[in-house]
Amino acid sequence: MKCKICKQPATIYLKYCGLRLCDEHFIQFLERKVQRTIKKYKMIDPEGERILVPLSGGKDSQSLMYILKTILPEEVQVIGFHINLGIPNSSEKSLRFINKLQDILGFELQVLDLKKEHGFSIQDLYEHRISRRPICAICGTIKRYVFNQEAKKRGFTKIATGHLLDDEVTVLMSNLIENNMDQLVRGGPMLPAREPNIIARIKPLYEVSELETRKYAEVRSIPYLTESCPYDVKASTKRLKKVMKHLEEIRPNSNLSLIRAYISSYKPAFRDHFTPSMGSINECACGAPTSGETCNFCWIKTKILQEMGQVE
Amino acid sequence: MKCKICKQPATIYLKYCGLRLCDEHFIQFLERKVQRTIKKYKMIDPEGERILVPLSGGKDSQSLMYILKTILPEEVQVIGFHINLGIPNSSEKSLRFINKLQDILGFELQVLDLKKEHGFSIQDLYEHRISRRPICAICGTIKRYVFNQEAKKRGFTKIATGHLLDDEVTVLMSNLIENNMDQLVRGGPMLPAREPNIIARIKPLYEVSELETRKYAEVRSIPYLTESCPYDVKASTKRLKKVMKHLEEIRPNSNLSLIRAYISSYKPAFRDHFTPSMGSINECACGAPTSGETCNFCWIKTKILQEMGQVE
Repeated sequence: MKCKICKQPATIYLKYCGLRLCDEHFIQFLERKVQRTIKKYKMIDPEGERILVPLSGGKDSQSLMYILKTILPEEVQVIGFHINLGIPNSSEKSLRFINKLQDILGFELQVLDLKKEHGFSIQDLYEHRISRRPICAICGTIKRYVFNQEAKKRGFTKIATGHLLDDEVTVLMSNLIENNMDQLVRGGPMLPAREPNIIARIKPLYEVSELETRKYAEVRSIPYLTESCPYDVKASTKRLKKVMKHLEEIRPNSNLSLIRAYISSYKPAFRDHFTPSMGSINECACGAPTSGETCNFCWIKTKILQEMGQVE
Repeated sequence: MKCKICKQPATIYLKYCGLRLCDEHFIQFLERKVQRTIKKYKMIDPEGERILVPLSGGKDSQSLMYILKTILPEEVQVIGFHINLGIPNSSEKSLRFINKLQDILGFELQVLDLKKEHGFSIQDLYEHRISRRPICAICGTIKRYVFNQEAKKRGFTKIATGHLLDDEVTVLMSNLIENNMDQLVRGGPMLPAREPNIIARIKPLYEVSELETRKYAEVRSIPYLTESCPYDVKASTKRLKKVMKHLEEIRPNSNLSLIRAYISSYKPAFRDHFTPSMGSINECACGAPTSGETCNFCWIKTKILQEMGQVE
């Protein structure tokens, strides 16, 4: 098994495109691939942007940071952002791995402590079940809110997240099964800004698989937290992800192919045919957009602080 | 485990809808389900039709025949049609099982011998590889052609095939992965007639799973050929079918849900957005529509007869 480029021994076989590569040429291949994704979807203006990269200490966000710092021109500021979620054990470890990556790459890091800033932690939410929604869904709402609000406040132009092909194709499949048109007309590698309050979100690893990210992190010696969050992802999402892996095994390239067909054909057809059920958009007291009177975050915050006896 | 209806011991658990049923109530449930499918998609005019049911002797077409003969009013003529494909061993057995079903149900059966009628058998096609297309694909083209031509000639109004949910969701998934828009705008439980030459095709078992058909055949003691065709289906289709089964296991009802979302939302959006690449439709010398000068069937026929030294 020889590298397609240099004929040295290959260390990885990418079945989806039939390529055998050595470490060096794999790194080159992957970084170019991400560069092409960024260009194809016009994710980043090379003349200058200020990009917030949410870091959890995990493989995906650490690798994204590494790649962005490596491939983007100096005009683009790439700044790490970490939320201390206040999960015992896990949160301290997360920060340690982010600091290790900082030692290697030397990027600016901003940290927000959820408990100090908003009066509650994810641990508090775990202990006081305030709603039937799974804890992961609530945590997701909180993170998206905080990233967006802080990005706005701190003058960022984009938020770049570490979502991988495997995540994205799983969500797509779930939305296709459930005829979730609200999501199907919106999804994709780039969620545009919406005035006045929503910062654009980009997913530079949209076409990169978990296998590729793992290999990249290994070859680049990227430090990352291997333990998953103690509250972990929804089991049903995990199982669906396994099915999509199974699909990819029996039909290499099907994940990428499906996601590309969605972007190039299905999503435009859905947008044409369906008007998203936007309803009226109001502004929450905190400034965030909401379909009701209060945004989800403020609802959660009020509820948990009440439960904890912090407010009447 | 008790039957939801009569509280007697249940013999099947339908996970996708959470129903436990005894033999008797399962039969009732399934026949009503097919009746609803026929009504929902306006497949059959109860005032009178003449329906051709292609029979292979296998589980699906035998069950379809049984159900149709059981649930349709007398005004609807249901007539079996069998093509003797000339596959050694297999073809004789097929006819024997169809005759057994005839003994039970007493339907009219018409038989066409491919070799006698057109001068070649599927065995001949297997021995003389005339193209790179898999033998199953060629056989499919031939069967569709013969059913359509004979239905027209013999005064049928519809062709009802035994395609099951498991088949349909597999084809749908494959088309979604491959962005096969030509097929995506056309697929579904009912392929309408196209003047002057195409007879409408209906799939009354469109929402019925393999598990349900197997159980139905067992309880109704329907005789059927269990051996599959010696040339068998494409391995890649089989593997994809397995993935869709895996999906159904971890997320019950997802197959039905996906196929229904496709019919109600995706297909209309695709039809709106994309014009099928019809090109110009010409008439082949045999009367069948074709995008070129000769239809696929006539191309195959000419080629195989040449190979066999039957024509210059």
